[in-house]
Amino acid sequence: MDRYLSGVQLARLLAIDPGARPYYRALAETVRSLILDGRLPVRVRLPAERHLAEALGVSRTTVTAAYDRLREQGYLDSRQGAGSWTALPDAGALGTENPWIAAEDDGLLPLHCAAPLAIGALPAAIASAGEQYPRHALGIGYDPVGLAPLRRAIAARYTERGLATRPEQILVTAGAQHALYLLTTMLLAPGDPVLLESPTYPHAIDVARLRGARIVPVGIPDDGWHLDLLTSAMRQSAARLAYVVPDFHNPTGHLMDDATRAGLVSAARKHDTTLIVDETWNELAIDEVPRTAPLAAFDTDGRVISIGSASKLWWGGLRIGWIRTGAATIRRLAALRAAVDIASSLFEQLVVTRLFEDIEETRAERRRTLGASRAALVAALTEHMPDWSFTVPRGGGSLWVRLPGPSGTALADAAACHGVRLAPGTWFGVDGTLEGRIRLPFTQPPQVIVEAVGRIAEARLRGPYGSRPALPLTPAL
Amino acid sequence: MDRYLSGVQLARLLAIDPGARPYYRALAETVRSLILDGRLPVRVRLPAERHLAEALGVSRTTVTAAYDRLREQGYLDSRQGAGSWTALPDAGALGTENPWIAAEDDGLLPLHCAAPLAIGALPAAIASAGEQYPRHALGIGYDPVGLAPLRRAIAARYTERGLATRPEQILVTAGAQHALYLLTTMLLAPGDPVLLESPTYPHAIDVARLRGARIVPVGIPDDGWHLDLLTSAMRQSAARLAYVVPDFHNPTGHLMDDATRAGLVSAARKHDTTLIVDETWNELAIDEVPRTAPLAAFDTDGRVISIGSASKLWWGGLRIGWIRTGAATIRRLAALRAAVDIASSLFEQLVVTRLFEDIEETRAERRRTLGASRAALVAALTEHMPDWSFTVPRGGGSLWVRLPGPSGTALADAAACHGVRLAPGTWFGVDGTLEGRIRLPFTQPPQVIVEAVGRIAEARLRGPYGSRPALPLTPAL
Repeated sequence: MDRYLSGVQLARLLAIDPGARPYYRALAETVRSLILDGRLPVRVRLPAERHLAEALGVSRTTVTAAYDRLREQGYLDSRQGAGSWTALPDAGALGTENPWIAAEDDGLLPLHCAAPLAIGALPAAIASAGEQYPRHALGIGYDPVGLAPLRRAIAARYTERGLATRPEQILVTAGAQHALYLLTTMLLAPGDPVLLESPTYPHAIDVARLRGARIVPVGIPDDGWHLDLLTSAMRQSAARLAYVVPDFHNPTGHLMDDATRAGLVSAARKHDTTLIVDETWNELAIDEVPRTAPLAAFDTDGRVISIGSASKLWWGGLRIGWIRTGAATIRRLAALRAAVDIASSLFEQLVVTRLFEDIEETRAERRRTLGASRAALVAALTEHMPDWSFTVPRGGGSLWVRLPGPSGTALADAAACHGVRLAPGTWFGVDGTLEGRIRLPFTQPPQVIVEAVGRIAEARLRGPYGSRPALPLTPAL
Repeated sequence: MDRYLSGVQLARLLAIDPGARPYYRALAETVRSLILDGRLPVRVRLPAERHLAEALGVSRTTVTAAYDRLREQGYLDSRQGAGSWTALPDAGALGTENPWIAAEDDGLLPLHCAAPLAIGALPAAIASAGEQYPRHALGIGYDPVGLAPLRRAIAARYTERGLATRPEQILVTAGAQHALYLLTTMLLAPGDPVLLESPTYPHAIDVARLRGARIVPVGIPDDGWHLDLLTSAMRQSAARLAYVVPDFHNPTGHLMDDATRAGLVSAARKHDTTLIVDETWNELAIDEVPRTAPLAAFDTDGRVISIGSASKLWWGGLRIGWIRTGAATIRRLAALRAAVDIASSLFEQLVVTRLFEDIEETRAERRRTLGASRAALVAALTEHMPDWSFTVPRGGGSLWVRLPGPSGTALADAAACHGVRLAPGTWFGVDGTLEGRIRLPFTQPPQVIVEAVGRIAEARLRGPYGSRPALPLTPAL
């Protein structure tokens, strides 16, 4: 039985504010909501684009754009010449609705992304790398394990942090995401259980799905990790791999204490789980916090693999990260890496090598700027959203906000119509939970944060399809 | 039954020249040869390191290094505390013996790699990118599809070449390898048949193996592609995907004519195969050749996907490549790409954008330098190896040499002991064939090529373990 809706029938269901901008987005989002709450069943054929356009009194292009968007998000299946049917996205597939991918430069304030602006010292490091470059540009330029001076600098930093490390234990990658991707590809087979924190970094979920792994989420309560929850999840799931972010956890901001670190490694040993420890935020304390030992410092049998990144401390536009593990595993990873993308940018490796020299100055700069942005965000939320709650983290880049109800996605949709892109809590979970949460980064400058919070407040008040125009995109300094 | 060899027994089998340098390598290679030709069966336990060291009169470290090497190559399985057994590498696994991975800076002349040195205009492009960088460094720096000006420049170059292209049809990647990896991951499921040329680019084989694809090799005879071979392979295998290098094919140097291009696309349409066309060498004609149309210009239904790279025209140290296909597929690829490594280096995207401006000057420079190196290689081979045969290609970067016998691997091993790293023919095939071939690149300067050919001649004469010291690694300008 082919179920079918005419243009007029669908238009009646939709009830979109004619002033909504961009209209195609409002149309797509409304159809998506109707599907999600069951008012529009799946496998119903939608009207042809021109029929719906007529019924709504909009251009056919607008309907085409909305259908395209729904198709990309997995809510529409189309067959050339036959029509389009409502659908639900394949849970195992990656959508193009993705934290890092804005459809275009749409002028929205990028509050979906916890990515600090570039540090002040970047131009000087670029210039210095430019001077050294010609010397390095004499060779063939491929270097799957990474440039020797950078491997030394990364190893030296681990050693300074209390974890003796040799350069052979370091693989330079194209960022922490790439590091996680390589490790997951090497260590997990499809169907293997992998333990992820809930909430966690959204791209860790993507990587696990891409690998076809069975995701075992472990909740992180409001007061941080509970060792018994982690341990029992390891025992019950026999997880091959666990991914944890112990330092200013993304998105909650928690910092794992030494006792939990020791307990976690010991549980991993007992249950034969390999720990991937993402230290991307490690250098970004804002308050005075006791220096915790790297998780790998508790390791006795090579089951803790650390990954790190230049992206938060220095800048996300630098695509440099690293893996720290045993030298033999590094060689195997290098062979895999050569098949994925051969090598990291030599120029950026020179830049990051230079940046390591002044790491303490950079940490101080970040402490100042992230501290100021965090204060601005807390103040703005206290003023505009007294019913939202959160714990202020002592470092990192975001607040993990509890909303008064399960409205994160609706709020993000509404905020987008008021010029702010947000990351709803569901992005950070695996099972459609966390709808009552939203992550608010404090990585943008205070004035952007204040403006954004004002717009979010307006979005709450006026609902999704108010017609405030998007901000022109002149990034603040 | 646990079969076992004592130190003395193995030492007797080995018969290594005591002057061989590095000795550990000679030891490992000899064990490998014994396993490969069956004189040392698989699943035999080898003596403990110290016993073999005593029997050979060398240090234990030397034996450890040799065992490590064998283990990495897959010829040895070891269990902590139990011992080491001879083994054969898993054909589906990636070894760490890899075209791009030298164990360390071992001072060998890099004739295994067809990678031209950086062009003269690179420092100026770096400087120009340095000037523009601060402006671009204001944003969050993540851009999974790529920087708009670079996408425009790449699209414009396709259009100039006779293939109308919009920037939305371009995804900027971290090199052609990365492009191929992303496409294979998206388009192939494990077990799917994929058609590869034989010989082909070694990393294409790695990628197919990594994906668990069923590899269907199609031979390329000495006179180039035979359309009937390609067509019947498509028909018989029902390959989902075919990977071809029509422009100065790596390693043979062939250039596909327009009639074969048209026929190939039409066969792909008939058998529902998607073609991935690697145009990495496309801009690198040396002789005057008629301009061929891009393969995608024959496409009528979106089944030809083109990939390209900055690495051969400008420099391999620039990790920038691209994919050209339909805009909707580009968006799906961008989502996948975000999960693999998020985005390309922003700085390098600026550099390559700048380099596109002077592409014709660069092509002229490459024509000159590659032409001189090609002439030097041909002359040196004619002088030193009159029994080797090859067809001189009209562009690209390598000669595909036919040896008088099936001796490619042995020659590469011998050459390594004389200071030259070579790529034996087997690297370019999927099934251990092509042993009678070797790829000799002419991407290094003439004096390096002349020196290398002299050493290869010496290696042929004196056999694998002569003790000429490695060259000091001061790369020639």
